[in-house]
Amino acid sequence: MSDKISRYESKIDEAVRKVLEGEQPRTLFEPVRYILGLGGKRLRPLLVLLSVDLFDGDPAMALSPAVAIEIFHNFSLVHDDLMDRAAIRRGHPTVHEKWGTNVAILSGDAMVFEAYRQLAQVPSRFLPAVMELFTTTALEVCKGQQHDMDFERRDQVAEEEYLEMIRLKTAVLIGCSLKMGAILAETSAENANVLYGYGENMGLAFQLRDDLLDVYGDPRTFGKRVGGDILCNKKTYLLIKALENANPMQRQELNRWLSAEEYQPEAKIEAIKQVYDELNLKAVVEKLIQRYYHASLECLALVQVSDDRKQLLADLAEGLMYREK
Amino acid sequence: MSDKISRYESKIDEAVRKVLEGEQPRTLFEPVRYILGLGGKRLRPLLVLLSVDLFDGDPAMALSPAVAIEIFHNFSLVHDDLMDRAAIRRGHPTVHEKWGTNVAILSGDAMVFEAYRQLAQVPSRFLPAVMELFTTTALEVCKGQQHDMDFERRDQVAEEEYLEMIRLKTAVLIGCSLKMGAILAETSAENANVLYGYGENMGLAFQLRDDLLDVYGDPRTFGKRVGGDILCNKKTYLLIKALENANPMQRQELNRWLSAEEYQPEAKIEAIKQVYDELNLKAVVEKLIQRYYHASLECLALVQVSDDRKQLLADLAEGLMYREK
Repeated sequence: MSDKISRYESKIDEAVRKVLEGEQPRTLFEPVRYILGLGGKRLRPLLVLLSVDLFDGDPAMALSPAVAIEIFHNFSLVHDDLMDRAAIRRGHPTVHEKWGTNVAILSGDAMVFEAYRQLAQVPSRFLPAVMELFTTTALEVCKGQQHDMDFERRDQVAEEEYLEMIRLKTAVLIGCSLKMGAILAETSAENANVLYGYGENMGLAFQLRDDLLDVYGDPRTFGKRVGGDILCNKKTYLLIKALENANPMQRQELNRWLSAEEYQPEAKIEAIKQVYDELNLKAVVEKLIQRYYHASLECLALVQVSDDRKQLLADLAEGLMYREK
Repeated sequence: MSDKISRYESKIDEAVRKVLEGEQPRTLFEPVRYILGLGGKRLRPLLVLLSVDLFDGDPAMALSPAVAIEIFHNFSLVHDDLMDRAAIRRGHPTVHEKWGTNVAILSGDAMVFEAYRQLAQVPSRFLPAVMELFTTTALEVCKGQQHDMDFERRDQVAEEEYLEMIRLKTAVLIGCSLKMGAILAETSAENANVLYGYGENMGLAFQLRDDLLDVYGDPRTFGKRVGGDILCNKKTYLLIKALENANPMQRQELNRWLSAEEYQPEAKIEAIKQVYDELNLKAVVEKLIQRYYHASLECLALVQVSDDRKQLLADLAEGLMYREK
């Protein structure tokens, strides 16, 4: 990893650590510091800074909005984990597991306002554009989460619907991070938009990789429960494709497990994974990931700066494509 | 009620009705339109417009931030009702009662972002000040709600702690509404601050009136369950004062009901009300309400505009002091 990336990462970590330091009441802010302190990849704030750097802007000035996006991302994890009843995040108990439902709701809310407080630190000439981008994105993320929950109650979800859901739930925030940097570096609208496209396609690939890791990931590094999506009948790309491509016997097997009320968790995970394997779905998803990865690089190619400046972002995308966690 | 107020009220109603009109998915936004459509007093947006008007500003320009504050207020009701497990709001089922916990969480979240979207419609020269005021206030409201929840688990809460809690939870948003108008009308910082003080004191009186109405209100007009605070052992001003002033027998009676696990709701309400009556607490609270009411008028007197312009706000405060719902 480049020196520049490590330098940016420590700046981000330092800034995140200072968020709400010493704020009272402790009951409200301790969970906020807990979830922010669990680490994670800090991908989104890093993308803000790398984007500013790409256009030769001032990364120091972009630190607050970068932190704003990281806080927003963590807020969405706190509320989503609560809604999905997920017990583990980044290898640790989720906020609602540790402190209960009400704390997860209210500490999550406080994170949104803290995110806006950080966002508002940008020089005021940027504030209208930054507010517009951030708020539009946040509403899209809410819509994505709602689709995700709606899909769980439906028998059938089309592939395009699923892809639109993960675009809203995951990809737009990656795009937003990059575009935020572009705005703050005062590059052209054209550059800002193709860079957004690079992020959006990378985000789609990123989420599909997450779907794969849920089934095929290493429990020691994944940070969430492997098979978690399978256990809660989440309509992932894998499940949607499986239901689409299954022969009658496989479909019967899938439906039996999807409607089962009492079962051994490991047995359900094994059985559904077996169908995925028979349908060769790992390769199908890998292929789609490749497609989005290449689309993201094509967008990056359209950004009007010299190729050597783009190398860091190209490397980052490659790293994410082949990540194991 | 003055023509001006009715005119502002219909402008607010019209603007609120248009919020998120036609936005998809319906599952996310129908609950938002539901809670906003239940009416309520629309006090906070009205205060924004009256404040702009006080300083001869342009109320049309203040409509979006006024709506932002109303949306924020309704968001806080959706999440607070969920955390407090309240079943009724404005005479209708609460959002979580009607659609469940997850919808109440996520639709509430979407309301925050929609509030910021509305807020960002102000002319950009106002945006930094408006953002700062709104976000600081929102964080204070979260702190107030956290104190409120923390108090429920404590045996003893001091009077000053309670008053600070309702200041954060209720009064600062009233102050914020008025100061928002002052900022948008470009009056002096001094005027903006004393007007904030008028709102803050009015807000304290307003919340104490709410505490009284919970016990002594008319169930046909109150909109919430009368005795609701008593049933959930909420540390209201009345309960705090009762625990402070009770003789040993009264204290025993209070503690017996506070720790009772199985009981007839009406019996608990009657018994606790009986102690409040013996301690003459209605009069004690009325006196404190009067004190805040007068403090709010004193702040209003310090605003540097002619007295006749202030009449509407003075009348409004009086109306709220003697409200029955």
